[in-house]
Amino acid sequence: MNELASKVIKTLRERSLHIAVAESITGGLIGATLTTVPGASKIYLGGVVSYATRLKSALLGVPDDIMREHTVVSEEVAIEMAVGLQNRTNADWVIAVTGVAGPDPQDGHEPGEVWICVLGPRIPSLPQSRQVERFDFEGDRDSVRLQTVDAALEMLLRVVSPV
Amino acid sequence: MNELASKVIKTLRERSLHIAVAESITGGLIGATLTTVPGASKIYLGGVVSYATRLKSALLGVPDDIMREHTVVSEEVAIEMAVGLQNRTNADWVIAVTGVAGPDPQDGHEPGEVWICVLGPRIPSLPQSRQVERFDFEGDRDSVRLQTVDAALEMLLRVVSPV
Repeated sequence: MNELASKVIKTLRERSLHIAVAESITGGLIGATLTTVPGASKIYLGGVVSYATRLKSALLGVPDDIMREHTVVSEEVAIEMAVGLQNRTNADWVIAVTGVAGPDPQDGHEPGEVWICVLGPRIPSLPQSRQVERFDFEGDRDSVRLQTVDAALEMLLRVVSPV
Repeated sequence: MNELASKVIKTLRERSLHIAVAESITGGLIGATLTTVPGASKIYLGGVVSYATRLKSALLGVPDDIMREHTVVSEEVAIEMAVGLQNRTNADWVIAVTGVAGPDPQDGHEPGEVWICVLGPRIPSLPQSRQVERFDFEGDRDSVRLQTVDAALEMLLRVVSPV
């Protein structure tokens, strides 16, 4: 069982909140990590692995013109992935990740460049919590993916349980 | 890099075929395993993690009455998950998995019960390849999930490259 995932599940369970995840670079690894925790099914709804560009539009509704203009490794696409998944799942919290694991660059982006969006609940008359961060991770393909999982879960914990 | 995943990616690449995965019990672990392989993005499109029951209908179109009648850990739901994902992605091959990782039973099913469906390309005037198998794995939560990943990839390899 993953420690960070366990903390996420516990934190969300205490607040009766659900989470869904839209994954590109990690290919399902965030969901796989969250579900190492027994009882995760009460909190983690699931999500979409939009690894291929065309699944980002087909399964999440990311507009093609945004992907063309900004490339799929961008702040804009991370946000659209999160918004698209929240629309389709009604999850309270959504994490979306897009980036380059390597070994090769992609669309002019170096391996290790990762964008993470953490989107909060839509509550009438309150501004919606939306965090987006860019990371430039060092290391090989596996390392970049693992660092992306940790960074995403840490971002979520920071906003869900502010210190 | 996972050996079995590497074999799957190589086998599909030689045949110019794409794959998508609908995961319940594994929570994203099949996608995460396939994407340990550099270059997986040319073959693995992505898919849906329909961990919660309601995402099986919302993201894959699994009919509610089928889930009620057969429970979500069933041959029928594994097939509907695969068909739903193929409709949404046009992937040549689709894997769908549903089961109980444990530690607790679910809907009357013991931990270790897993259904896997492997669905082949839709080619006009040819019958579609559709394999469904039930497994009863021993071991703890992590072990059941890892055995599910291996069994799914092995099933796919058997039908894509028959000996």
